[in-house]
This record gives sequence, structure tokens and C-alpha cells, in this order.
Amino acid sequence: MSLLSIGTVAFDNIETPFGKADRVIGGACTYISIAASYFTNDLMISSIVGGDFPAKELKYLEKRGINLEGLEIKKEGKSFFWGGKYHDNMNKRDTLFTELNVLDDFNPILPESYKKAKYLMLGNLTPDIQMQVIKQMKKRPKLITLDTMNFWMDIAMPSLKKVLKKVDVLTINDEEARQLSGEYSLVKAAKKIFKMGPTYLIIKKGEHGAMVFHKDKMFFAPALPLAVVKDPTGAGDTFAGGFMGYLASVDKVNFEAIKTATIYGSVMASFCVEDFSIKRLKKLTKADIKKRVKEFERMVKFKI
Amino acid sequence: MSLLSIGTVAFDNIETPFGKADRVIGGACTYISIAASYFTNDLMISSIVGGDFPAKELKYLEKRGINLEGLEIKKEGKSFFWGGKYHDNMNKRDTLFTELNVLDDFNPILPESYKKAKYLMLGNLTPDIQMQVIKQMKKRPKLITLDTMNFWMDIAMPSLKKVLKKVDVLTINDEEARQLSGEYSLVKAAKKIFKMGPTYLIIKKGEHGAMVFHKDKMFFAPALPLAVVKDPTGAGDTFAGGFMGYLASVDKVNFEAIKTATIYGSVMASFCVEDFSIKRLKKLTKADIKKRVKEFERMVKFKI
Repeated sequence: MSLLSIGTVAFDNIETPFGKADRVIGGACTYISIAASYFTNDLMISSIVGGDFPAKELKYLEKRGINLEGLEIKKEGKSFFWGGKYHDNMNKRDTLFTELNVLDDFNPILPESYKKAKYLMLGNLTPDIQMQVIKQMKKRPKLITLDTMNFWMDIAMPSLKKVLKKVDVLTINDEEARQLSGEYSLVKAAKKIFKMGPTYLIIKKGEHGAMVFHKDKMFFAPALPLAVVKDPTGAGDTFAGGFMGYLASVDKVNFEAIKTATIYGSVMASFCVEDFSIKRLKKLTKADIKKRVKEFERMVKFKI
Repeated sequence: MSLLSIGTVAFDNIETPFGKADRVIGGACTYISIAASYFTNDLMISSIVGGDFPAKELKYLEKRGINLEGLEIKKEGKSFFWGGKYHDNMNKRDTLFTELNVLDDFNPILPESYKKAKYLMLGNLTPDIQMQVIKQMKKRPKLITLDTMNFWMDIAMPSLKKVLKKVDVLTINDEEARQLSGEYSLVKAAKKIFKMGPTYLIIKKGEHGAMVFHKDKMFFAPALPLAVVKDPTGAGDTFAGGFMGYLASVDKVNFEAIKTATIYGSVMASFCVEDFSIKRLKKLTKADIKKRVKEFERMVKFKI
């Protein structure tokens, strides 16, 4: 089934304790769509880049079955550019700079062919832009997932709350869930967030895994402890891509499917962090994915 | 099978965002032995208290099948007394005061009947005292588990390293594993720690669950997200008690048994934090435990 993703397609400068990468390919939509492309090839993206974005990288996305009709290329503009530095604790990072560039004027106009997408992934962007995309859909997608962050909670909470009413799945981290709900207990936070709109809450906890809340049910997906974590950038977006890609591929939305999708999302994220930028994701095979899913299964299986 | 535990039997002053408890029953050995008593009744403890420790609390321990022959009661002395305060993030706490009192002279002399215990749980104490207990054993126990903390790594690393050579299982938290090994990646940390002695490393991550490392294998036990976490004090010790109690009850030591024991430890810890001191642990039934084990199973089960 068709999956439409929105988010940034961009450049990143990354510094981690394991190295540096300058002006490498990044952006939420890039990670989401590449991860999803391992599950389905009915993919569309809506985003914006400047004339500086390498044509060969766009070709790569197309080669992976991603429809770029909704990717605006502003020839005279520069692509969104973000710089960040991770400290010893790879769960925390500082933003070094944010150059919005073309993103400042981003006004996503969906091509006709996009408006009937059955699955919609709203990557981290201003809540207003996320809403604008929802409003253009001809038919309410079967599943809408929204990713957001504390930044929008700080400066645009009313807009965020409006868009939350329209979505099925919310993906945020534990601190953000606490901020959004005002509850420390994630169980209580989930209950409050369900009242805001979403019926599924996915808490991304980085190296501590991911949790799914749905009604009074919970699911816990581990993260795979890795010998080498080079760059966590894009892990959350890659998670979302694997998650939505899997759901679109099986075209099922229920707790069981969401659980499996969460495992696939975690598996994809575990590859993402093994190298800088999209390097590791580009080199994946279906066999790699299958093998790692087995590792995840083994990691949580027990007999009582 | 017989399980000998050492550690403190003490008083605690606890402050959490959910309330205060003054001069309540605490101590690593208290939590360990009560948790273990739900699995086996061949239990012995070696510890020390002052004349101020309530006789009815000792009677309670005896009623749960815990042999107190090795519990020294120093009539003229005062029991170990610790005060701590938890902040919003219940994973972090400040020590407000530590009154060693009788613990300052603790010199555990094991009764003859203790020296053949098959399972040995060395609760958090100075590494020298932990070593002293190991040396008194007539026969090398089938399994020795050691709990320790960053404090001993800071001030007594050489002694800690000596005792580590003698143990099978080490239980510490993620920061401590990083401090002990000098490695940020837990996979690499585990490899270094295996070279120090233990063949199993259990990383306790509080609300993020627990991980087991053994050779090149890993296991991830979730923590149960709870609506109410009143007091995390003793959660790690309760984990150890459930873990060792289960192993002693089945008398098996292999990766499968260790995995199951880790789930039981996590289950017991999930009860511990629901109320102050040992209140919740005292009220448990076997049916409560069974029901919660099912919740843990449901929480990680998925189909692929």
C-alpha cells in the first residue's frame, strides 16, 4: 500500500565521540523513506531541497522506488543544513547550528497522485505544515503517524495539539511524553495523550528501546546493544520508516501488527546508528534485516 | 537449595516526589531475603543490627523461613541508618546522610551451618567484607552473585577487583559498568568485565529494565511501566533476591535459567517500588507474582 512521508531532505554536520562527518546527507524524510523502501515500493515524499542537493542522491532515492514528484527543488536556494554534536552519552546532543534555508518557505503542495495515500508519515516539522498536509488528503488515510519534538511543544503547543487530534500514532521520546502530558509515569502520560487524539503512543528511548502504549496494553521492544554506535542521527526517523514501511506492506492496523512494526522499526534503527549519515542503510540487504530480527527475537525470549 | 545472603539490615529515611517515610525498615539483605523467600525457604542471612532494631521485624523474617543465626545483634549499638532523597527522575537520588553505626564493626563470622550454602548472594557492602564471606565457605558455592556500586569503584577498586575474580554474576547499573570497564558500549564493557572474573553480567537499568550478558549472548528483560512508583529504594536488592531465590529453587545455572531468573527478579522489583520500604513486598501472594509474570510475557511477545 502507498506510503506518503513528509519531512526534511537535508545536509548534516555531525560530531560524535567516534568521528566527524561534514555536509553529509540527512533529513527526516530521507531516513524515513530509505528505511521504508526495504518494505514497500509504493513510496512518495513531500519535501524541499535547494539547487545544492546532489542529483545523484536524488537518483538513489528514485532507484529505491521513491516517488519524488512532491519534492520541490528550489534551484536558487540552499538545502536545510543542521549541525549537531553528541557527547559521551549518545542519547544527548547539542545543536551547533540550524540553517533553515529553503525550508523557511516550505509550503507543501501535494501532487494529485499523493492525495489518496493510504499511509501517512508526518516527519518532524512545524505542526502547521503537518496539518497542511493532512488537509490536502482526499481521503482520510488508514493510518497517520506523527513524529514531533520538545521544540514544538515549547513554541507551538496550540498548533501541535490541533494536529494531534488528527493522528493515530504519536512517536516521541520519554521526556517529551512527560512534557506533553505533565505526567512522570509513562502509563499515566499515555492515558492523557490518548485523550489528545492518538490511539497509539510510541515512546522512543534510544539505547533503552521503544515502548508502545495502546488502550490499557503495553509492548516493549528492546534496542540491540551494539559494539559500535557511530552516529545516532536519524535513528528515530529510520525507526518511523521501518515501522510505517512494514505496516504499509502488510496493510494491517491492529495492536499485533503495530508490535511487529515496532520491532522492524527498531531493527532498522539499529543499522542506522552503525555508521554516519545514511551509509549503513544504503548497504543493507533483506538477509541482514532478517538476521537482525532473529537477534531481537532471541534477545527477549524466555521460558517460564 | 540453600541461599546465603549478606548485606545490610537497616533503617531508611526516604523522600520521593510521592511522599516521605521516616526510619522505615530497609537494607540490602532485608530486601534480598524477603524477595527470595517467595521462591525458597532454605534461606540464611549474615548481617548486623543494633539493639534498636524492632524484634517484631526480625520475627517477620524468621516467619518467612529466613535463618537469622548469622545476624549479629549488638544490643548497645544502633542499626545502620541511611537517608536519601529522590528527584523527579526517580532513577537519580541524593544521599542525605549515612550513619554506619554497628556496620562500622561488622565482621561477619559465618555459623557452621552457613558454610555449605549452595547459592551465595553478596549484597552491596565493602569488597573486603564480601571477600571475607567467600573465604569462610567450606565448599565453593554453585553460584556466587555480587552486587556493588560506583562508591566502591571510587575508593576500593583494588579490593573490588580481587573479589570480582571469585564471582560468577555481577549486578551493576549501566553507568557503573561503564566506569568499571572504561567502555561506553555495553557490549564492549561486558567483554572487559568477563576478563575480570564474572561469566554473567547483569546491567540493572531501573525503569528501562535489565540486560544480561553471557559470552556473546544477550538478554533483555523489560521493566514494567507502572502508574505509581512511590519509592525505588531496594529495587536492585529485590531484583537480586528474586533472581537468586528462583535459581536456588530450581537449582540450575545456565543461560536459560539465568534469563528466567532475571524476569523473576524484575517482577519482584516491580512490586517493590509500588510502596515505601518493604510494605508491598510483605503483602505479596504467589498469585500476584504469577499474574505479573504473565504481564511481562505479554509485554515482549511478538510474531514475525
